[in-house]
Amino acid sequence: MNDISDTPSTDQLKNKFMKKIPRDAEASNVLVGEVDFLEKPFVAFVRLAQATTLGGLTEVPVPIYPLPLWTSLFSRVAYKARDREDLIAGIDEFLDEVIVLPPGEWDPKIRIEPPKKVPSAEKRKSVYSLNELGQINGTAGESGGVSEDEEMPTAHEVGEELVFTGRFCGGLLLDIKRKLPWLPSDFYEGFHIQSISAVLFIYLGCITNAITFGGLLGDATDNYQGVMESFLGTSLAGTVFCLFGGQPLIILSSTGPILIFEKLLFDFSKSNSIDYMELRLWIGLHSCLQCFLLVATDASYIIKYVTRFTEEGFSSLISFIFISDAIKKMMDSFSYYPINMDFEPDLITMYRCECMAPNQVVPIIFNVSALLVPENTTDLSVLNVTALDWSQLSKVECLKYGGSLTGSSCEFVPDLTLMSFILFFGTYSMTVSLKKFKFSRYFPTKLRKLISDFAIFLSILTFVALDMFIGLKTPKLIVPTEFKPTRPDRGWMVMSFGKNPWWMYLASFIPALLVTILIFMDQQITAVIVNRKENKLKKGCGYHLDLFWVGVLMAACSLMGLPWYVAATVISIAHIDSLKMESECSAPGEQPQFLGVREQRVTGILVFVLTGVSIFLAPILQFIPMPVLYGVFLYMGVASLSGIQFWDRIKLFLMPSKHQPDLSFLRHVPLRRVHLFTLVQIICLSVLWILKSTALAIIFPVMILGLMVVRKMLDMVFAQHDLAWLDDLLPEKEKKAVDEKKNERSKKKVRGGEDGDDEVRDKIAWPHEVSRLCREQLGSFPEGRPRPVTWT
Amino acid sequence: MNDISDTPSTDQLKNKFMKKIPRDAEASNVLVGEVDFLEKPFVAFVRLAQATTLGGLTEVPVPIYPLPLWTSLFSRVAYKARDREDLIAGIDEFLDEVIVLPPGEWDPKIRIEPPKKVPSAEKRKSVYSLNELGQINGTAGESGGVSEDEEMPTAHEVGEELVFTGRFCGGLLLDIKRKLPWLPSDFYEGFHIQSISAVLFIYLGCITNAITFGGLLGDATDNYQGVMESFLGTSLAGTVFCLFGGQPLIILSSTGPILIFEKLLFDFSKSNSIDYMELRLWIGLHSCLQCFLLVATDASYIIKYVTRFTEEGFSSLISFIFISDAIKKMMDSFSYYPINMDFEPDLITMYRCECMAPNQVVPIIFNVSALLVPENTTDLSVLNVTALDWSQLSKVECLKYGGSLTGSSCEFVPDLTLMSFILFFGTYSMTVSLKKFKFSRYFPTKLRKLISDFAIFLSILTFVALDMFIGLKTPKLIVPTEFKPTRPDRGWMVMSFGKNPWWMYLASFIPALLVTILIFMDQQITAVIVNRKENKLKKGCGYHLDLFWVGVLMAACSLMGLPWYVAATVISIAHIDSLKMESECSAPGEQPQFLGVREQRVTGILVFVLTGVSIFLAPILQFIPMPVLYGVFLYMGVASLSGIQFWDRIKLFLMPSKHQPDLSFLRHVPLRRVHLFTLVQIICLSVLWILKSTALAIIFPVMILGLMVVRKMLDMVFAQHDLAWLDDLLPEKEKKAVDEKKNERSKKKVRGGEDGDDEVRDKIAWPHEVSRLCREQLGSFPEGRPRPVTWT
Repeated sequence: MNDISDTPSTDQLKNKFMKKIPRDAEASNVLVGEVDFLEKPFVAFVRLAQATTLGGLTEVPVPIYPLPLWTSLFSRVAYKARDREDLIAGIDEFLDEVIVLPPGEWDPKIRIEPPKKVPSAEKRKSVYSLNELGQINGTAGESGGVSEDEEMPTAHEVGEELVFTGRFCGGLLLDIKRKLPWLPSDFYEGFHIQSISAVLFIYLGCITNAITFGGLLGDATDNYQGVMESFLGTSLAGTVFCLFGGQPLIILSSTGPILIFEKLLFDFSKSNSIDYMELRLWIGLHSCLQCFLLVATDASYIIKYVTRFTEEGFSSLISFIFISDAIKKMMDSFSYYPINMDFEPDLITMYRCECMAPNQVVPIIFNVSALLVPENTTDLSVLNVTALDWSQLSKVECLKYGGSLTGSSCEFVPDLTLMSFILFFGTYSMTVSLKKFKFSRYFPTKLRKLISDFAIFLSILTFVALDMFIGLKTPKLIVPTEFKPTRPDRGWMVMSFGKNPWWMYLASFIPALLVTILIFMDQQITAVIVNRKENKLKKGCGYHLDLFWVGVLMAACSLMGLPWYVAATVISIAHIDSLKMESECSAPGEQPQFLGVREQRVTGILVFVLTGVSIFLAPILQFIPMPVLYGVFLYMGVASLSGIQFWDRIKLFLMPSKHQPDLSFLRHVPLRRVHLFTLVQIICLSVLWILKSTALAIIFPVMILGLMVVRKMLDMVFAQHDLAWLDDLLPEKEKKAVDEKKNERSKKKVRGGEDGDDEVRDKIAWPHEVSRLCREQLGSFPEGRPRPVTWT
Repeated sequence: MNDISDTPSTDQLKNKFMKKIPRDAEASNVLVGEVDFLEKPFVAFVRLAQATTLGGLTEVPVPIYPLPLWTSLFSRVAYKARDREDLIAGIDEFLDEVIVLPPGEWDPKIRIEPPKKVPSAEKRKSVYSLNELGQINGTAGESGGVSEDEEMPTAHEVGEELVFTGRFCGGLLLDIKRKLPWLPSDFYEGFHIQSISAVLFIYLGCITNAITFGGLLGDATDNYQGVMESFLGTSLAGTVFCLFGGQPLIILSSTGPILIFEKLLFDFSKSNSIDYMELRLWIGLHSCLQCFLLVATDASYIIKYVTRFTEEGFSSLISFIFISDAIKKMMDSFSYYPINMDFEPDLITMYRCECMAPNQVVPIIFNVSALLVPENTTDLSVLNVTALDWSQLSKVECLKYGGSLTGSSCEFVPDLTLMSFILFFGTYSMTVSLKKFKFSRYFPTKLRKLISDFAIFLSILTFVALDMFIGLKTPKLIVPTEFKPTRPDRGWMVMSFGKNPWWMYLASFIPALLVTILIFMDQQITAVIVNRKENKLKKGCGYHLDLFWVGVLMAACSLMGLPWYVAATVISIAHIDSLKMESECSAPGEQPQFLGVREQRVTGILVFVLTGVSIFLAPILQFIPMPVLYGVFLYMGVASLSGIQFWDRIKLFLMPSKHQPDLSFLRHVPLRRVHLFTLVQIICLSVLWILKSTALAIIFPVMILGLMVVRKMLDMVFAQHDLAWLDDLLPEKEKKAVDEKKNERSKKKVRGGEDGDDEVRDKIAWPHEVSRLCREQLGSFPEGRPRPVTWT
């Protein structure tokens, strides 16, 4: 022991393993040796009174404290033991929890995988004491039947956020009180490399959405609201909401039902000679007031009746719509750029498209001027149409001047459709593969994580580059470049009075009611989905605060003549997914843990500020082909399906039972019940899908009520116990306890059954006997032997 | 016990589990109960003298025999035990082999996966006795260093097939003697559903190869050998070889080096006014004789010096060539069907391609006739060129008659290139995904296996259907439809004499030598690859017999003026892969085992008969687009890379060590050595790849000798032990033994080391002490207690 020094050796300091060890760690050493004078094995525990660095004795330079045996569980005993009895009791406890694998058909070379989640010592202990309890009570042989009294689920656990306060604005004040302390951290926690990829991803989703909905709105409202308004509105509403909203992870966007409402409203105004913008303003103001009323009365409380059944139905449906829209948009390119399927390379000489001058020249001059007047009247009126070289005109010009196109190649556009499909599927597949790359065996963890985090960005870059390399005129992203309303005859402010009769200001209360219900359901169900327990959000949510700001924005957008905004389910889920945190692996072999979501306001604000600034980013954005963005949309839709229990249950239909994953509800609910539950959900969603394609689409979010009714009816069909498991009604804590108990049961069941594997069956067959025997052995320590040293 | 009947109950007979139980199985029962008069647990073993059906006592109606405890290992003891001592010894042995998992950080809910391979009881025992031995000898604490004397690899295990007999035709006779008994089974074993998919897969590979090489040969030899000769030759040579060859799993095909040789020979003949076909015939005859000489002298014996290093280098290189050829062919479509990258849909009116009449009419008439004479002189001489409507001519006609094409769209062909790429990547990706589908969780095992077996066929069908649906004129598979030589001035027989000077008949001995070496190396190394131990071939191989038939076919093909054929590595590997057999899962949770390859002659014969018949299948085959077949080629190349150790080692470069798979050589050779070995191989192959692109390509198979030289040089750099592991020089049996020993060592090392996981470290820490204690317990059975009944 002479060469033990107080300072760590260079070997120790250089050891890479040191990095992985938590601070304040203490070391222990197990020394094994042979001496002549000992006839039997002899064990001595030496615990130092003070932690000391003992030089080269340990691999890494940390102070040595106790001498634990075997594992962490026992080390706690060795750390605290006062005398030999404590130590023996510790060994006893250790042996109680030992698990014996008999030599069976299992391969001794097998490597038992490290735990996904390190169970706490208490939990492990409780598992075993439960087990023991069961044996003492003589229930070991029980067939595993469910004794209802133990496992009855209690009522749905209502978060404190949704408690009905009964006071005026009680919920809103609680929301503010809850969110205010987090405000500083909402900003400084946003500065992380992961935020960059999240911002890019969501930004691209947002501008694609803004352009799509802007285009559709422009179509529907005769350009009263166009792409420009869409960009401005998205930017304004999003920024305000992310700055002040209760749940800044929610992304606001235009949604389908609102679009349909606007379309109907515009058609109604036009056919009844009502001023659309003014009417819309009043509807918006009424709706804003109604939202305030809902906030003041804590009405969001009713959202707690939305169970997993309804919530997952809603989000699946939205995901399906996203996916089908992306594919539909791609299919449209077949009609935009028709492929000449009968093209014969050899007959290239036959294919042409010629601009033919009209037969009579005189009426054409008239035609042409008539055509050109409304558009721009500068140099065209002086144009002498008769002098035109018709064959030199482009397709658009030819049609403009009244010419006709003849030839077999006029209607076809080569290459663009196929190139679009290559870009679309390429972007989607590359994103999926790169996302999966995190789980590959290649490259260090950090690099893999980086690649996976930036998967969407890398895919977009790659396929934009491919598109630029090929150089085809694929449809590109076009953002407005000038800051002015799409329609020249409207300004940035809508006047409140003067164009419509006075009674209309009051009557707009009724359509406003529909809008309010639309917004309320859409907003709050998305919030429920975002606030799911699985996401492990720590900063709480703010249903009332959210609705308050949505109301404010309704009024503001109506005043400025911008579209209305509400929470967008799929993009919000994508936002959360891109901000998920996992623990860095600290010990070798440890699995990364999902720690929660980077809850902050920075990414949201940046996304929407960028959306506003996009008007000036047009030179860069113009290189992005639309099919690439549709590929991103497809990915968003598919990704938001994963992690939905409903989707997992659908997959179960196709899986033979032996391949089914170890889902917790499968341990508790018979498979037939699970399938029935899924089938009911599928039928409900199919009906909703069909209704969505009809005029009823406008009340789509209201149809959620239908889902809730069906869910209530299920109460009559299913046992409460089954429903609780499938519909996630069990509070987290009780669920865990039941899970553990059940787990024990199922183990016993497997042990008794005939179709389990040997090693599972015998897993916990031995410890008690072994423990007793070993305790007897240790108890008979001859007193004459040297006793352990330095029991402090 | 009154209700125990001799006949099984209906419940028992209905039990589905019965299906899974092997015939002649016997049951045992463990009955547990509580009685008042027993104070301590009491165990009784009852073994019946005769197996008896005890009615409802067992779950399934099988006779009950012994009463085994715990697992199969102990059941053998209980089956054979004569008295209590035997039984105690059995428990002792059982406890010796028990493995204890201490309560650590591992999750008790984890499921230990069923073994990939059920280890035999003997093996398990030997593992543990080795372990014990190690402890007795006090080597437990050893650092895991290698004691050379134990583990020195012996010389490369030479299969009996390659023993040098020293007798005239000794090897050939042995080959025949070995293969003859299998002949009947070679036929009846071929009738299996798997054969259908294998035939389709290989057939498509073969005709694609026949067309590709046929086209290239036609180019190189001025159509003396064209696609027709290629089809006929492939069919003839393949059928004969599969009928009579030593290894009917080998697929014959044209190969690159032969193609280059033919090209050089043709150019030489042409420039020296030598008759090419006659010269070629004599070279073929000489080469045939030389092959016979090699067969008669057992020269194939030298192939045993081809180790894994050389063999894998060769097959990797061939795979890379396959992959790069497939991609190159696809890239060619960019030049066949150029895309107009500057296409503006609006300017469609500007794009045209017009056939312009030449300026002077008179010289053109002359030109046209001059052009047309050599091709076909029927109706064209009477054609009045001046009367032509030039604008109505197709591209080909226009150029034929001397017109010129003007216009911006002449050089472009729309859509075809992009469509080709979609078909190419689609076929490849779909094949890969469907092949992987076998390991998915969906659908029953049988359906998954079927889908995976027919993966290539399904992909081809899908993309042929897609191609037909789109209807574009993608390049299609064109097979000759008329049975006649490609060149009208040659017949189906080549005359041996008359056209060249007599000395040439003798001199052709020298080029024949090169051809023989080419053929010998190509053929025999492919045979070594096919006969790899991993493929578990049971019917033995026939190197000498193979070479004999290749020689015969050389002569036959030369006489008929058909191309020469030799074993094609990639297609042969694909053939084997598509015929792999796996055990049907018999017990729940059991993994399917690779049982070997369906060795038979039927698939090969069918493939080549179909290839011959393809001339009449043209109406069906014409729907298959070439890009689909190139996709299949790409898949073949990539698939033949998997399972090559060299490829596994390349992947190791990119893997952090904790993610590296548990490859056996990694347990024995330091990682840096492995990387060095791989690096040497990569450099060698790069050099060969570069040489291949030069004129040296002709001696490509001979370059294998270079690989063998490098390999010999490695002997000086590497320890013999390392080389043995990397280069697979260890005979299978010794390897296993060493592996087990080593395995033990590495376990010990892990246990002693600091960076292993707790549970691995403690895996085998306990059994001996437990065993001793339990034996003491059992040994102290009070004599007064009732003794076990009916020890027969």
